[in-house]
Amino acid sequence: MEENINSFIEVSGTIAFAISGSFAAMRKRLDPFGVLIIAFVTSVGGGTIRDLLLGHTPVMWLRTTTTPLLILGATLVSMALRRHTKHLERPLLLFDSLGLGLFTIVGLELASRFGIHPGLCVALGTVTGCFGGVLRDTFLNDIPVVFRQEIYASASILGGLLYYGLHAFPVAAPWARLAAVGFIFLFRLLVVRYKLSLPRFYE
Amino acid sequence: MEENINSFIEVSGTIAFAISGSFAAMRKRLDPFGVLIIAFVTSVGGGTIRDLLLGHTPVMWLRTTTTPLLILGATLVSMALRRHTKHLERPLLLFDSLGLGLFTIVGLELASRFGIHPGLCVALGTVTGCFGGVLRDTFLNDIPVVFRQEIYASASILGGLLYYGLHAFPVAAPWARLAAVGFIFLFRLLVVRYKLSLPRFYE
Amino acid sequence: MEENINSFIEVSGTIAFAISGSFAAMRKRLDPFGVLIIAFVTSVGGGTIRDLLLGHTPVMWLRTTTTPLLILGATLVSMALRRHTKHLERPLLLFDSLGLGLFTIVGLELASRFGIHPGLCVALGTVTGCFGGVLRDTFLNDIPVVFRQEIYASASILGGLLYYGLHAFPVAAPWARLAAVGFIFLFRLLVVRYKLSLPRFYE
Repeated sequence: MEENINSFIEVSGTIAFAISGSFAAMRKRLDPFGVLIIAFVTSVGGGTIRDLLLGHTPVMWLRTTTTPLLILGATLVSMALRRHTKHLERPLLLFDSLGLGLFTIVGLELASRFGIHPGLCVALGTVTGCFGGVLRDTFLNDIPVVFRQEIYASASILGGLLYYGLHAFPVAAPWARLAAVGFIFLFRLLVVRYKLSLPRFYE
Repeated sequence: MEENINSFIEVSGTIAFAISGSFAAMRKRLDPFGVLIIAFVTSVGGGTIRDLLLGHTPVMWLRTTTTPLLILGATLVSMALRRHTKHLERPLLLFDSLGLGLFTIVGLELASRFGIHPGLCVALGTVTGCFGGVLRDTFLNDIPVVFRQEIYASASILGGLLYYGLHAFPVAAPWARLAAVGFIFLFRLLVVRYKLSLPRFYE
Repeated sequence: MEENINSFIEVSGTIAFAISGSFAAMRKRLDPFGVLIIAFVTSVGGGTIRDLLLGHTPVMWLRTTTTPLLILGATLVSMALRRHTKHLERPLLLFDSLGLGLFTIVGLELASRFGIHPGLCVALGTVTGCFGGVLRDTFLNDIPVVFRQEIYASASILGGLLYYGLHAFPVAAPWARLAAVGFIFLFRLLVVRYKLSLPRFYE
């Protein structure tokens, strides 16, 4: 059951980030292969860096074809919606924020299963959640990468601290997880909305 | 014999990418050490990322001094031809495309020896072939890195699929390898030529 | 005793690079979390890449909380001095150069304990010393990253060669280490001073 929840979270995050990467790549008018590469990097980048830091190799997406197939499917669907990217700024942000929250907690929990110190689990959760997007922006050569990255980092770190903070209270793990994912999701949305800086992010 | 062919391919690709990296670095007027670093990153970058993803460590270029010495030699020869870089746009492109084809197949075959799924072997071959150039451009701060990267990716993926496609027919491994390397080499040349975008690539 | 010297060097380098990263991030007006992330990347980036290449995982900063706490402390102190960054260009350069020298030799000596060839130990020392700064600049999107990086590389490589060169003479390890660190520190300072290019570096 625990495992089912984890795989559900991982699947959702993988799809969310693959869509987010596809849209970002299509905005840069990459050809289909370029879009697929960026979707892949965005989706598995953070978890790959986490696995490398832990010495957990071959990295997760080499151990099964599920993840690559999910990314391929999500990318094809995104390409089918290609013409509508102009109207898809909000969905892109939503998927991006959802993937951030999901992957942060997946990474945090994997690290804690490796016996890493909680404070460092928060750091690894942040890496898992943020670095797919960081690699996406680096490869797409988006100038203000650091600003989005900084928002990512702040949301992930706070969400990770919230996750551990809730353990000080009688909160069941699934609820702590849900609360942390929801917090990161909403925090990221509010920061972007408040700064009114989404356009600068993707042009 | 198999091993000899593999090491010959690996040596050729190492030299090809070292020369490609040296020329790109000299165009940016780096000092000799800077040129050597870029040549090194370009040459071993893709294979290093492949080894890290597979958990195949210490990475290949730490296990022997052959690769570093080949890169050093290729870099010195490139520096000796420094004054002629203006006239060396075509050779640079040729070496770059040759290295792309050679490394893609080397990476694909190493991954398959690790029991990785064929579709993922194509992905790892692409990583092996592309990411040396991606790292070179990232460090040299070439603005349109993603466009060249996208061409790289497309050529590598198609070449990798061709390699496996040929196994559906009675084609001996060496010939499948040769066909895939040749395809990637020519595909990359044609795309660049067709887009008439080489100048934008290196200025 | 040997260990004490090594940990002292590692601690000094960690603090030096964390301060250097914090100042660079504050110049880009990142929020506190963004500053912490950049300080962390700058401080552990080089050693992390070294550990990954050697297969020395989980990487060093996941094995203890000392390093992360040192970075957190150094970052908070740097933030407390936030208003004075205008007057802190020289300290920033000094810390940066000190960290470069310290980490280069730490990385070189760890690699040699792994039985890596001396020439490659110099390369790994260079990676350890340089790549924290390279990652910092990449994430901060500093345009002339490659120029600073090139100076880093030149200073580290020469310092590493000096370290091994001194072993040809009856020089005790601690003194060879001290000489190499000092050489890298001064070489980097002189190159920046001579090129009068510090302002371009940090604006």
